[in-house]
Amino acid sequence: MKEINVGIIGLGTVGTGVFKILGKFPQIKTLKIAVKNINKKRNIEGLDESILTDNPFEIVNNPDIDVVVEVMGGVEPTFELLKTAINNGKHIVTANKELLAKHGRELFESAKEKNVVILYEAAVAGGIPIIMPVKTILGANKVEQLAGIVNGTTNYILTKMTEDGISYEQALKEATELGYAETDPTGDVEGFDAVYKLAILSAISFNKRVDYKKIYREGITKIRKEDILTAKELGYRIKLIALAREIAQGLDLRVHPMFVKADKLLANINGVTNSILLKGFPVGEVVFTGAGAGEMPTASSVVGDILDLATELKYSSYPLPLMRCKHEESAVQVDINETYNEYYISLTASNNPGAIGVIGTICGRNNINLSVVMQKGTNDDNTAEIVVITETSKEQDVQNALRELIKSDCIKEINSLIRVMN
Amino acid sequence: MKEINVGIIGLGTVGTGVFKILGKFPQIKTLKIAVKNINKKRNIEGLDESILTDNPFEIVNNPDIDVVVEVMGGVEPTFELLKTAINNGKHIVTANKELLAKHGRELFESAKEKNVVILYEAAVAGGIPIIMPVKTILGANKVEQLAGIVNGTTNYILTKMTEDGISYEQALKEATELGYAETDPTGDVEGFDAVYKLAILSAISFNKRVDYKKIYREGITKIRKEDILTAKELGYRIKLIALAREIAQGLDLRVHPMFVKADKLLANINGVTNSILLKGFPVGEVVFTGAGAGEMPTASSVVGDILDLATELKYSSYPLPLMRCKHEESAVQVDINETYNEYYISLTASNNPGAIGVIGTICGRNNINLSVVMQKGTNDDNTAEIVVITETSKEQDVQNALRELIKSDCIKEINSLIRVMN
Repeated sequence: MKEINVGIIGLGTVGTGVFKILGKFPQIKTLKIAVKNINKKRNIEGLDESILTDNPFEIVNNPDIDVVVEVMGGVEPTFELLKTAINNGKHIVTANKELLAKHGRELFESAKEKNVVILYEAAVAGGIPIIMPVKTILGANKVEQLAGIVNGTTNYILTKMTEDGISYEQALKEATELGYAETDPTGDVEGFDAVYKLAILSAISFNKRVDYKKIYREGITKIRKEDILTAKELGYRIKLIALAREIAQGLDLRVHPMFVKADKLLANINGVTNSILLKGFPVGEVVFTGAGAGEMPTASSVVGDILDLATELKYSSYPLPLMRCKHEESAVQVDINETYNEYYISLTASNNPGAIGVIGTICGRNNINLSVVMQKGTNDDNTAEIVVITETSKEQDVQNALRELIKSDCIKEINSLIRVMN
Repeated sequence: MKEINVGIIGLGTVGTGVFKILGKFPQIKTLKIAVKNINKKRNIEGLDESILTDNPFEIVNNPDIDVVVEVMGGVEPTFELLKTAINNGKHIVTANKELLAKHGRELFESAKEKNVVILYEAAVAGGIPIIMPVKTILGANKVEQLAGIVNGTTNYILTKMTEDGISYEQALKEATELGYAETDPTGDVEGFDAVYKLAILSAISFNKRVDYKKIYREGITKIRKEDILTAKELGYRIKLIALAREIAQGLDLRVHPMFVKADKLLANINGVTNSILLKGFPVGEVVFTGAGAGEMPTASSVVGDILDLATELKYSSYPLPLMRCKHEESAVQVDINETYNEYYISLTASNNPGAIGVIGTICGRNNINLSVVMQKGTNDDNTAEIVVITETSKEQDVQNALRELIKSDCIKEINSLIRVMN
């Protein structure tokens, strides 16, 4: 059997998992591994430390290496490294969602020119098989919608808030202690990580190039205990959802918290688990659920890509058609202000009989029908929390209404606006 | 682009869906369709009725046809037809689980000899992508367990029994009226359909040939309203589970009802939806959920297979390595008597103080520890239902205990034995 030689860039959690699992497949040989600190004490079974290098260019420029496995993360110097590897005719397997979201276009264009492929199953939802099914066996479908829980950190935090009735800050603290959140959690809790994944997944699902910068993004840092509680009372759970829909004007792509009906599968995905719902024709709804991160689940996808590539390389020559990305046209991305949604809105109002009338009037004036209006008890300062759920309304109208509301005498504060999944 | 010519055998629900969806892909041309009754009035958009034939051999012997799509079902004359097609060098796409379970070995052996492939994504769980992911992107994994709800009819019946508290007979009647159960429901309700699917899925998951006749099978016809109710009280749902585990002695394969903890994803798969949990190393648990049957979901998988095959054929020559089945070794299949499980057992006992003692003594003598013993109210004839849940016990011991119990004076009847998923 023809041996495939790989070089691995990065020997952190994922890289170590990949190295260990590759050891089970004699047709794949790990020739070299680039690490940050060559003097670090390591204790990895089966690792001959003489293959380590602290110069990753020794991998991308090594003429004996067929496949470069990039599990280092970050944009620099990864972008430079992978560009060089591609120029040197090497296939790429990467778990780097940020790099692909930011520089995928250039990388895929050079890959095409150089007759190599870039595989990235691990970049979206870790161990869950989603990229390969969308590219292959679901190919008969026109995808209509994606809705995913694609960030384990935020789902863990929201789950803890829901189960234990604790605040965002407390839940984040627990997540950090357990290693589910990084010391600087911004990339996760502000939704950047989910945006990168959505950019990648929506590009292959809708066969269009996607600009991650135009994806609307809202994190979970402003979700209050009270929102979680009200959601539960009304039969919902709050989840950070990566949403993609094809609508008349183009692709509607966004990452933000959502009310999800409690009986839906996505509402019941708890802890660090990820889950992606794909709705398409003719398949209907299919849901892929599993571990979205971690050494071993991510290694499953990285090594899966390497094995598939090795199998194809054994018998076929480029273009390995099942593995290519074919889309070249850029998506028209719809501004969130142009989209229609249902909304949960929480307001603090002065506790007098007119408040609900004012809310109703201002909403009505902005073409917003309300389906639920609830007063949630009064505060010491003679204010009350009022919660409304709207019927389907235009985002622009809702934002206009909020601006009017906050100007009115009886509305003291807009506490929350969370979109509702229908 | 090179055109691929297909011939479709069968123009029922699935065949019609496949024909319609294929119409969207100009690279695939439907040359001929074999139907049962050529004179039947049809009204299918885009169908030129001159391509119909009532002689399916016109398809399998047609030199212009590259791919034979078999969506007729049944074993005869399908087996003969596909053998002929393979001998004539045609690739096969089929949704026929029964045929593959019963004659897969001969078909795959001839396919190998003739340098063609057999694709069958639609044969297991309809529209859910499971065969392709297991064959490709999950290839780094050692599969440890499969647990699937793979039959929509029985899941619908069990869901209705759970939600509405009705009997099996009533729920079956509703399922039949809604078209979810066939006039003769035996294949579904007795678990045959699930056995065929499990045989196919476990073969590719464990890379061994599987004998469907050795798969232990129990249907849902004996599930009582009372079992459903007790399961709910104890925090479980009853599901018909296709289970596969690799254990020390070999492959443990079976289809039978199970108690599933209510907070597990599989317990919350309701109605005709299918769901398959795969547990492997390194991926951990991944769950695939979606429509397990129906015109359009099944067409998604059939056409997905055709498109993937067309893509590969365009650039590669046989053996199309990502599409082949490679296992040739037969599995050692473990007899259910040798397996270990937890059990729910319902007994009717004479309502006297000694009954529970007798049950405990007989179970103890057979190495069975009980974790729950509950009396469920008394009957008019001075008997009572007693329910026990055992700790992990050997099937053979449990069967021995049941034989002893039924011989004892105070046990009047064994109402149910249902295994518990752990």
